[in-house]
Amino acid sequence: MALSDLRRVERNEEGIEKVLGILKQRLGERFQTGQTIREQHAHTTTYIPNQPPDGVAFVETAGEVQDIVRICAEHRVPVIPYGTGTSLEGHVNAPGGGVSIDTSRLDKVLAVNAEDLDCTVEAGVTREALNRHLRDTGLFFPIDPGANASLGGMASTRASGTNAVRYGTMRENVIGVTAVMADGTLVKTGGRARKSSSGYDLTRLLVGSEGTLGVITSLTLKLYGIPQAISGGVCPFPSVDAACRAVIMTIQIGIPVARIELVNALQMSAMIAYSKLDYPASPCLFVEFHGTEAGVKEQAEMFGEIAAEHGGGPFLWTSVAEERARLWKARHDAYWASLTIRPGAKGLSTDVCVPISRLADCIAETEADIAESGLVAPIIGHVGDGNFHVLVLMNMDDPAEIERAESFVQRLNARAIAMDGTCTGEHGIGQGKLAFLEREHGAGAAVMRSIKAALDPLNIMNPGKMPG
Amino acid sequence: MALSDLRRVERNEEGIEKVLGILKQRLGERFQTGQTIREQHAHTTTYIPNQPPDGVAFVETAGEVQDIVRICAEHRVPVIPYGTGTSLEGHVNAPGGGVSIDTSRLDKVLAVNAEDLDCTVEAGVTREALNRHLRDTGLFFPIDPGANASLGGMASTRASGTNAVRYGTMRENVIGVTAVMADGTLVKTGGRARKSSSGYDLTRLLVGSEGTLGVITSLTLKLYGIPQAISGGVCPFPSVDAACRAVIMTIQIGIPVARIELVNALQMSAMIAYSKLDYPASPCLFVEFHGTEAGVKEQAEMFGEIAAEHGGGPFLWTSVAEERARLWKARHDAYWASLTIRPGAKGLSTDVCVPISRLADCIAETEADIAESGLVAPIIGHVGDGNFHVLVLMNMDDPAEIERAESFVQRLNARAIAMDGTCTGEHGIGQGKLAFLEREHGAGAAVMRSIKAALDPLNIMNPGKMPG
Repeated sequence: MALSDLRRVERNEEGIEKVLGILKQRLGERFQTGQTIREQHAHTTTYIPNQPPDGVAFVETAGEVQDIVRICAEHRVPVIPYGTGTSLEGHVNAPGGGVSIDTSRLDKVLAVNAEDLDCTVEAGVTREALNRHLRDTGLFFPIDPGANASLGGMASTRASGTNAVRYGTMRENVIGVTAVMADGTLVKTGGRARKSSSGYDLTRLLVGSEGTLGVITSLTLKLYGIPQAISGGVCPFPSVDAACRAVIMTIQIGIPVARIELVNALQMSAMIAYSKLDYPASPCLFVEFHGTEAGVKEQAEMFGEIAAEHGGGPFLWTSVAEERARLWKARHDAYWASLTIRPGAKGLSTDVCVPISRLADCIAETEADIAESGLVAPIIGHVGDGNFHVLVLMNMDDPAEIERAESFVQRLNARAIAMDGTCTGEHGIGQGKLAFLEREHGAGAAVMRSIKAALDPLNIMNPGKMPG
Repeated sequence: MALSDLRRVERNEEGIEKVLGILKQRLGERFQTGQTIREQHAHTTTYIPNQPPDGVAFVETAGEVQDIVRICAEHRVPVIPYGTGTSLEGHVNAPGGGVSIDTSRLDKVLAVNAEDLDCTVEAGVTREALNRHLRDTGLFFPIDPGANASLGGMASTRASGTNAVRYGTMRENVIGVTAVMADGTLVKTGGRARKSSSGYDLTRLLVGSEGTLGVITSLTLKLYGIPQAISGGVCPFPSVDAACRAVIMTIQIGIPVARIELVNALQMSAMIAYSKLDYPASPCLFVEFHGTEAGVKEQAEMFGEIAAEHGGGPFLWTSVAEERARLWKARHDAYWASLTIRPGAKGLSTDVCVPISRLADCIAETEADIAESGLVAPIIGHVGDGNFHVLVLMNMDDPAEIERAESFVQRLNARAIAMDGTCTGEHGIGQGKLAFLEREHGAGAAVMRSIKAALDPLNIMNPGKMPG
């Protein structure tokens, strides 16, 4: 992307003024227009500039969301759903102003159906809150994007994270949603049946639609039994290529690995320094296995053999929780470690995803590109899915460097798309990647625009984002 | 459903005549208008009447599909995609006439990417043809709806079958498609990356859209390693309720069962008589496990313990292929066995799916309803998913019986929907279940109609079916 690509959205001053008046009266203290709160509700996690909404509504029921959307529709004012604000692509920015719908008070776990391995939660429940709620049931919700995001937000961006290789992404784990559509209608998609051939898949259409088709107010999610045993460990490799080939073989022979994370040499050096650990500064795979005691032992041993075949090792692993935590500590601290590489820099995060057969090539070309571009950019990857993150650490006072970084990201995204991959494995399009939507989807982008126009004819649902 | 609910579609005689002339000239012998071929391409598998198209185009390229759709769009003539004609809900009927697009010559496997565990095939490739093609790779495509359906057709109806409990349905296993949309545009959805947050999920929108939004011409599918070992067996239970409770526990404790099929007492009696086997005529579960030698043994033993806890058994199982085939023979012959229950009758197939916690209730109420209605209707279920089939065997010369059967099916579908389930787990809406779409989806049905109107404004793509 380039900052200059951010879509402009015309402000409708008259409509905004009317809506502010109405919502203040309706919601009282639950409608806030102070600058600090407005700025907190716009994008802050990356280098995309903050574009605050005109007001923030702290809703408590789906009915209130319906009211707000109807009022905004009447006056043609943008509606921007807000979960916890941990998006990395400007999803919560309000380029044309409007009303941010803060879902944090939609925080009730509505039902846990242990027999059916599912639950229904309001959209503002975070994944950690859900797992706390589930503590005594023997069940858990596995999707872990790192941040303690809201489940509504995770659904909206089709989030995933480290254990998607085993448990899938929000695409596979959202069974149904209720959502307020652009005309204020409340739609319930899906039932609780595990499968259905009934009608268009509105659940999957809303998952990943980034608030541009509707505001998700509750969702039904798959749950899983907490594994009897977990083993995990760390394995160094002589090269990224060797590590990637070990990953391919691991996936191909069907080891049900729960996490398999690649860290490249630069990132590893930072992690070693930061976490003061005794690892080699070479590319490493961090792996985790879930299953029975015997199963996780077998899996770890099989993985160790594969690693050795590819020149990797020693593979240090354990199924003792404390020791596993110690081995994985460096990985958990990875983000903080990467920031120490260049203090004061702002991060531009990327998340291409390619077929795993192309992963080694894609990372190798990308590392060469980083070197040639003179950028500082460590790499971490959810490589079981072919997904990796380059975090470009930029000096924001150097416009030439920003331009070099943006042009690097353009090449990176184009490279992934050319390899039959995607410019975004888990962060979403948002503002940051809008320029790549057409490039990746060709004629499909026009189909997306037709759907958007049909379901949101006034273009009030999170405008300036998808599908452009 | 009731036959009287079948949607009428106005015939556009003038347009049809023009299109027939153009396509005859373009395709020569590959455009057929003889009555036999036309009737073969309309619905024949159930009691829904045959509504033949006006001509059948045997296409050989996606480009030809584009031409045909453009010509039909120009003259406002219906386009009905045809795979192998094994739909159970009238999907291939042509209530307003038009052109059937026979995809059987789109029969090329375009790519097998063993490292990525995926393949790309033309839409007319059948699942058995694909698995024959994969024979030497150690990989297989698991989805098995029974019939040797085309993969394009399976995607269009979001098909599944006996092993969806382990491998998912077409929803989870189609990575991307190319499809000709209503204006003749060829759209490619998805890439080959395992996950993506890029744009609206057009793949999942087209999967299950039953040819009403576009004609799928090729698709990219997930593949799996052939399991090292398979074990399987049969276990009788004192009641459907006991069997269902054993299923719930099996799923809940996370035994990765590959198939778990319930057969009720009536169906079991028919199977025993037909296959001349020495089983008790009580409800049975047929199960299969995939994994390592040790794994499938462990799984079978764990299942046996669960069965015993619920009063089931003896659980006869084996991992020797020939013995497994003998144990499962009755299940494989189930359809033929059910037809012997009432020779000469026509079958009305149903496929409700409910959360598994409701399965025992749903089947018990349904068995009582069958008895009260005086119907002959055995039950078989893919119970790991909460999905079961009642095959109502009807004397088509008795209008009162047909009415009783139709009203039974109405109650069955309503019962499943009331239990947070669906009227169709795997067969699709087609003509037969259109009346239930609104009932199941409420305001969601209007959203579906908006999407249909936006993407097919002339209503030429398989009209008279979804979304009504």
